[in-house]
Amino acid sequence: MDSSSAEGAMTMQERAREFIERRSIQNAILGVIIINAITLGLSTSAAVQAQVGDLLAVFDRVVLGIFVIELLIKFYAYRLRFFNNAWNIFDLLVVGVGLLPDRDGLSALRGLRVIRAMRLLSVIPQMRAVVQALLDALPGMGAVIIMISIVFYVFAVMATLMYGPAFDIWFGTLGRSLYSLFQIMTLESWSMGIVRPVMDVYPTAWVFFVPFIVITAFSVLNLFIGLLVNTMQSAVEDESELEFEKLRELVRTETDVVDEHVLAMHEELRALRKEVAELKAGRDG
Amino acid sequence: MDSSSAEGAMTMQERAREFIERRSIQNAILGVIIINAITLGLSTSAAVQAQVGDLLAVFDRVVLGIFVIELLIKFYAYRLRFFNNAWNIFDLLVVGVGLLPDRDGLSALRGLRVIRAMRLLSVIPQMRAVVQALLDALPGMGAVIIMISIVFYVFAVMATLMYGPAFDIWFGTLGRSLYSLFQIMTLESWSMGIVRPVMDVYPTAWVFFVPFIVITAFSVLNLFIGLLVNTMQSAVEDESELEFEKLRELVRTETDVVDEHVLAMHEELRALRKEVAELKAGRDG
Amino acid sequence: MDSSSAEGAMTMQERAREFIERRSIQNAILGVIIINAITLGLSTSAAVQAQVGDLLAVFDRVVLGIFVIELLIKFYAYRLRFFNNAWNIFDLLVVGVGLLPDRDGLSALRGLRVIRAMRLLSVIPQMRAVVQALLDALPGMGAVIIMISIVFYVFAVMATLMYGPAFDIWFGTLGRSLYSLFQIMTLESWSMGIVRPVMDVYPTAWVFFVPFIVITAFSVLNLFIGLLVNTMQSAVEDESELEFEKLRELVRTETDVVDEHVLAMHEELRALRKEVAELKAGRDG
Amino acid sequence: MDSSSAEGAMTMQERAREFIERRSIQNAILGVIIINAITLGLSTSAAVQAQVGDLLAVFDRVVLGIFVIELLIKFYAYRLRFFNNAWNIFDLLVVGVGLLPDRDGLSALRGLRVIRAMRLLSVIPQMRAVVQALLDALPGMGAVIIMISIVFYVFAVMATLMYGPAFDIWFGTLGRSLYSLFQIMTLESWSMGIVRPVMDVYPTAWVFFVPFIVITAFSVLNLFIGLLVNTMQSAVEDESELEFEKLRELVRTETDVVDEHVLAMHEELRALRKEVAELKAGRDG
Repeated sequence: MDSSSAEGAMTMQERAREFIERRSIQNAILGVIIINAITLGLSTSAAVQAQVGDLLAVFDRVVLGIFVIELLIKFYAYRLRFFNNAWNIFDLLVVGVGLLPDRDGLSALRGLRVIRAMRLLSVIPQMRAVVQALLDALPGMGAVIIMISIVFYVFAVMATLMYGPAFDIWFGTLGRSLYSLFQIMTLESWSMGIVRPVMDVYPTAWVFFVPFIVITAFSVLNLFIGLLVNTMQSAVEDESELEFEKLRELVRTETDVVDEHVLAMHEELRALRKEVAELKAGRDG
Repeated sequence: MDSSSAEGAMTMQERAREFIERRSIQNAILGVIIINAITLGLSTSAAVQAQVGDLLAVFDRVVLGIFVIELLIKFYAYRLRFFNNAWNIFDLLVVGVGLLPDRDGLSALRGLRVIRAMRLLSVIPQMRAVVQALLDALPGMGAVIIMISIVFYVFAVMATLMYGPAFDIWFGTLGRSLYSLFQIMTLESWSMGIVRPVMDVYPTAWVFFVPFIVITAFSVLNLFIGLLVNTMQSAVEDESELEFEKLRELVRTETDVVDEHVLAMHEELRALRKEVAELKAGRDG
Repeated sequence: MDSSSAEGAMTMQERAREFIERRSIQNAILGVIIINAITLGLSTSAAVQAQVGDLLAVFDRVVLGIFVIELLIKFYAYRLRFFNNAWNIFDLLVVGVGLLPDRDGLSALRGLRVIRAMRLLSVIPQMRAVVQALLDALPGMGAVIIMISIVFYVFAVMATLMYGPAFDIWFGTLGRSLYSLFQIMTLESWSMGIVRPVMDVYPTAWVFFVPFIVITAFSVLNLFIGLLVNTMQSAVEDESELEFEKLRELVRTETDVVDEHVLAMHEELRALRKEVAELKAGRDG
Repeated sequence: MDSSSAEGAMTMQERAREFIERRSIQNAILGVIIINAITLGLSTSAAVQAQVGDLLAVFDRVVLGIFVIELLIKFYAYRLRFFNNAWNIFDLLVVGVGLLPDRDGLSALRGLRVIRAMRLLSVIPQMRAVVQALLDALPGMGAVIIMISIVFYVFAVMATLMYGPAFDIWFGTLGRSLYSLFQIMTLESWSMGIVRPVMDVYPTAWVFFVPFIVITAFSVLNLFIGLLVNTMQSAVEDESELEFEKLRELVRTETDVVDEHVLAMHEELRALRKEVAELKAGRDG
């Protein structure tokens, strides 16, 4: 492999990058995504499916092909740096789902393919910003989320051991308990649906469930307050930082003006002193 | 059409404007709206309907006539600028519904007529301000609302494809899925009513619904936080802007006082120097 | 009625005021309220009722007597100014309910008597402060509450006209519609319990209910944000007002120090100028 | 007991403290807690229980032994100061539950043992901080919580007296009423599940329940706002305190610079005056 061929490869890679970042290409991709989102929506209608179902299926494969080619070009253009951008990985996963074999009876997989329309979030810059803002909020919530997870886990194990034998559907396994506790946390039918029936068998079950509700509600509240205070604080700070800077600038310039005048006068005073010294010297001399 | 007739038309238009903006006329309209709101309420009672139903119907037509005349005068007075004010368009729509033909059996239309009482919001200035404040909050929420819409659409298409065949009433069409997902987002009977039955057929359905709940709850939370931070920030800024201005003013006047004294002294020093120069000149001369 | 007897009455009134405001008397009243709250609680138990029910009933009448005497003394002590204090009116109403005749079968009235235990809120100063803070928040929410009321009224009239005939229990009268809409606003069983059944008859009912939910949720959210911003703003302002005042004070004293030095120097300069003038005069003289 | 043996005991105590606070020991304890949390989770599975249930039971006893020894060493090391740390008391309670006799049929007790996994919260410092932050928020909420408790108690007594006879399961005793009102406060099935059935018997029951919902919702809202304002205020204050300090420092240094120049000039002026005085003296002399 001589340097000229490496140079040629370089040029090819650069041209691929230039091509894929071209405004017109990006708009074309966005258009394909939107049309695909609409056709995916249309394909849910039995009437449309009966009439133009085959056509929609073909179009879907074409779109899938376009997306695969787009990702291949991107990968060729950026090589391993392709994976540095989380949005590329998102696109890869979301498109990749469409490539999974369509085993019969697996309508779940057919549905999952639609997730591709989520690319609307990754292609439109404003949407990226919104999602980014949502994700940026997560780390600050880490500790509280872990705490809630521990509380969930412990309560789920306890519920499985205590109520599992009598209420198999709700608390039969650890997974079922976790799901039921999530439902209770959202307050959906927690009393009429779950706790009252449980209390018919274990009359003191409220000692377990009411504190669980209070603890999780209070934790979620604190999660929310923490998030709010962080957002607010940085918003207010940016603003007041600016005001303070303006004020500091003003204090500096105003005192500098005075100082300048004082120094100018000092200069004059020195000149005067020199003259007086001369006067004195002249008299003494 | 000579200029005098044009002038006459102008005067007519001006008189119409003066008339419709008169305090007494506006209060009379407000009175009519309030009385109409009460009679519309009364007309829901079967007993009242049986006794004075005809009278109420006549009164309703009279009120409708008054509103139509009011709008015609306004339109005559403002011409196309009539449409510049969103409240006029609101009034037009709300009154217009009452003019639709009263086809029998369409109790829905009969009910819709009542929306006219919403004019209470458009006529009382304080209510206008409240509604305006609510609407002003919308643009800042635009990006997050679009994001939630995309998430809703994609999840609805997926739900229709995956669960539609087995649960026609909930997920049979795209519209039904959107409605069911809205219900799930409000947490109403999401588990006992919908997800548990779905899980009986598709045991892994929680993988679809629990993330949907978490994502939408988190997005709505962020919508709310964004709204709150914006409102708070502008409220705090106005206040602190004022404080900072006062402080800046103080810094300026205080240093100006010092500066003035310095400059006055400089003037005196110059005079002194001149005297010393004269003294020197006198001695040397 | 001569002046001395008027004076005597005055003294009686003053003594009554001194008596009722005595720390020990107030604590005794508080003790009676707490014990009464406990006995009222005990009287809900059938077992306790069977054993000492008569005793509790006698004790209840004694407590009622004490409260009536307390209020009479207060009224004697403060005369019409008694009604200036909203807490006195609260006590009057709450005690007054216990004096209503106990018509048989009216267990509702028997229950209402218990409201007397709410005096715990009016007697403990900290509780008064909390309730006061809650009530202070109300006026700022006035406009939004009126707006929500108008929306509620209009939607209730519409629901009664449109869905009343088919769903008598939920929307048969204006009152029933208002209650059902309140339930829908709290999101309780709004879809599975009410809107889905309504949609079975009127398939487009979601056009009515979903906007209602969105509008009321958004209004309540704004109510809450308004309340929060007000509370926050006044809390932050008090604090920053103090900081700004400290800063202003600093700017004033610091520049005053400089100014003083400048003025002192000016004084010296004037003295010097005088000396130079003398020097000049001496030479010229 | 001579001083040398006392000294030996001292050393033993210090060595115990050093041992129990060693990083490696603490990590080992953390490891045991995590593994125990996992085995407790596994023991909920019937399949796992059937295969290695005995092994898990033995492991559980070993872990319990380790925890007891750890607590004994801690108690030996800190003596009564052991109880100064709330986390030690937490650990004591949580481990102590595992020592209760395992009476057959008491699956509740078996489940309660799992609470031991909560030690994850007390051993990991970050988790301690989160829990501490949650608990620190409680005192500021004290007054409102007491107010809500009073409201709850009074409404529960009233509900028991008024609706207890007809609705024994919901309002039969004070405890049942408190539970039902808690359910109503969380808005779970409050209308369809409870209030509508009650209204079938007592048509005016909404006069009792709707205000209860509004009052508790409003109180909880204020609880939340108070919590938020406190958190926000202290966060903003710390920040602005810093900015103000910086600004104050700037004002001080800037005016000090000017002042220094003024004073230096004053010095020069004094020198000049002296010279003029000498000049004058020389002429006069």
